[in-house]
Amino acid sequence: MSGIECVLFTAGGPGPEVGEEIVLSAEESHHAVRVRRLRAGDMVWAVSGTGTACHCRLQEADPREASLLVVENEPRWREPDREVTLYQGLIRSGHLEQIVEQGTAIGMTGMTPLVTERVERHGVRTDRLRRLAREAVKQCGRGRIPVIDEPMSWEEFLKRRNDELLLVADSGAEEGLSHFVHSARMPEKGGIGLLIGPEGGLTDAELTAVTAVGGIPVHLGVRRLRSETAAAVSLSLLLIGTA
Amino acid sequence: MSGIECVLFTAGGPGPEVGEEIVLSAEESHHAVRVRRLRAGDMVWAVSGTGTACHCRLQEADPREASLLVVENEPRWREPDREVTLYQGLIRSGHLEQIVEQGTAIGMTGMTPLVTERVERHGVRTDRLRRLAREAVKQCGRGRIPVIDEPMSWEEFLKRRNDELLLVADSGAEEGLSHFVHSARMPEKGGIGLLIGPEGGLTDAELTAVTAVGGIPVHLGVRRLRSETAAAVSLSLLLIGTA
Repeated sequence: MSGIECVLFTAGGPGPEVGEEIVLSAEESHHAVRVRRLRAGDMVWAVSGTGTACHCRLQEADPREASLLVVENEPRWREPDREVTLYQGLIRSGHLEQIVEQGTAIGMTGMTPLVTERVERHGVRTDRLRRLAREAVKQCGRGRIPVIDEPMSWEEFLKRRNDELLLVADSGAEEGLSHFVHSARMPEKGGIGLLIGPEGGLTDAELTAVTAVGGIPVHLGVRRLRSETAAAVSLSLLLIGTA
Repeated sequence: MSGIECVLFTAGGPGPEVGEEIVLSAEESHHAVRVRRLRAGDMVWAVSGTGTACHCRLQEADPREASLLVVENEPRWREPDREVTLYQGLIRSGHLEQIVEQGTAIGMTGMTPLVTERVERHGVRTDRLRRLAREAVKQCGRGRIPVIDEPMSWEEFLKRRNDELLLVADSGAEEGLSHFVHSARMPEKGGIGLLIGPEGGLTDAELTAVTAVGGIPVHLGVRRLRSETAAAVSLSLLLIGTA
């Protein structure tokens, strides 16, 4: 697996068919040819972020405009069966960045930063987080680039609740996440939302409100976890612990 | 759980009995009284790192020499049933630090940095890692301070193998760690070793050598994980995913 080379490209409309050509951006061409030292004839996986990856042969190893020939298309390339979206109470940038890097490799589908009562900051450098998600996709090798949303207010979050299963990290919960994921209530496929509070946690009122719209409180063991560790632990249990 | 206050102290000989007094160091006194703003009469958990925690009442809220009265002793305070030691191929300092912070909160018992063939550096600031482990213990609240060893050579590591179960993170393994931890081969209690290579991974020769001494190769899913994410994921599955 360590031999897998992954490059990103921008697809207009439907993805390229087998036999079509993909031309990489100057930045990606430079990275592939100068940094990764790929040569004409080498096989690479080209990802536009939709989930499908194109297995390609490098045709022109031009460091300004490299071109690839699509040999095979693989839908849901190295993607988990479940789609887990992280709703993360805002925390400081370095920790959000860590969550995007680790969460992308563990397999999350997207992250929405949430402005809850106890957040200590409101700004998010979404552009930087999106760049980190793209880099992490190349690093870990997967077909989908996690969607990093703009921060959402708590009211908006509650209003948008639909029938997506929502798990809420809560140190006071009676049930552990590890128990839940191995119970019959854990869906085989489909979307799961995971809510993790900011450093100060969710307030009692927020916990009440989110359980009223169907959120299921689960704990992550007896030790107190920082938000970024809680994210890594829960995503591991949901996406790798059940695989 | 967020209300738990945890302080560190140094115990000489056997731990203090109920009714005995604990005097905190100047640094811990300052932290308790000035930073955490604890007052006389407040309850705190005092930890010397052996696993047993002393539930104490703060007597003198002196910022230079605070004193506590032991009300109750709790062995294995918020400690997992299993003892997992991480054998981690050397990676760069920031990533080792992340492993110590996350690993301590997830519940690892100790970490031994390993000098394998593909490590790109040899030095480790063990003193700094030990300080981070102590801070993480206060942050997460647990009775044991993970032991951070000096770096060990690969030869020494192989020579010291005993009957401790050893799991080896290997992307080419047939069995997933998640499958292993829910199989009958997973011990209920006792020690488990977890070997994670450096960024370049273990060499084929190292993998052969470690399986020859009983190491069990397990993969961590289909996506490629950086060492520090591999550590967080495997420790989560071993220590929280089975709780």
